[in-house]
Amino acid sequence: MVDCLFCKIIKKEIPAQIVYEDESVMAFLDIKPVNPGHTLLIPKEHFADMDSASGESLRNIVSVAPKIARAIMQALGYEAYIFSTNNGEAAGQEVKHLHFHIIPRAKKDGHLPFAQGTYKEGEMEEIAEKIQKQLK
Amino acid sequence: MVDCLFCKIIKKEIPAQIVYEDESVMAFLDIKPVNPGHTLLIPKEHFADMDSASGESLRNIVSVAPKIARAIMQALGYEAYIFSTNNGEAAGQEVKHLHFHIIPRAKKDGHLPFAQGTYKEGEMEEIAEKIQKQLK
Repeated sequence: MVDCLFCKIIKKEIPAQIVYEDESVMAFLDIKPVNPGHTLLIPKEHFADMDSASGESLRNIVSVAPKIARAIMQALGYEAYIFSTNNGEAAGQEVKHLHFHIIPRAKKDGHLPFAQGTYKEGEMEEIAEKIQKQLK
Repeated sequence: MVDCLFCKIIKKEIPAQIVYEDESVMAFLDIKPVNPGHTLLIPKEHFADMDSASGESLRNIVSVAPKIARAIMQALGYEAYIFSTNNGEAAGQEVKHLHFHIIPRAKKDGHLPFAQGTYKEGEMEEIAEKIQKQLK
């Protein structure tokens, strides 16, 4: 896509620290890392997000993601990683080209501050039913 | 695996609000949701985490994830979602059976509080080189 930042990185029109590349995907360092080595893994074909991506592009991504994550951990001495994509602005997506974050983590980081809630009595069943209906 | 909580859910030995099931994967509501409708998507075959999962199991997961995420958004009126897995304790993984979080998000939630840093001059190139070496 003409005005897409990540498409320009793929075409090497904009420089990036590329750590992996094959026919269908590219991985490069995020310039605003949660931790050093924080990497973005993207399909070369342009899709706005996971919701609009082809099944093939998603399967290509997960086929190489563990190998790249392992390389980041081994290269930089991390013990763990988060593999994550934000689908849509309300989820924090900034660049509208599907990208998966590989965020390396060490014990000293502590857990991420996801605030978890609870369900009221009966609420969980109601919510599950609503989702099940959409999947029928 | 005998003592695995999620294997017991798969075998229906422990109840869960299951929203989707096919031959290879199961999706059910997280009992401690970040938002109502927060769903866990898991392979039926036991793998501790993404790092040790088969490529096939990961490809099965992403083949159905967007459909399930869309159903959650449509059923409950969300605009976006996060699709994420924590690989290892230091990344916040609690149950040692590979699971992907589908966390529905609405604009009013605001962004998640990932603290992002920066690189010093030359640091990014050094880090990229170390990762590239591991991938050779």
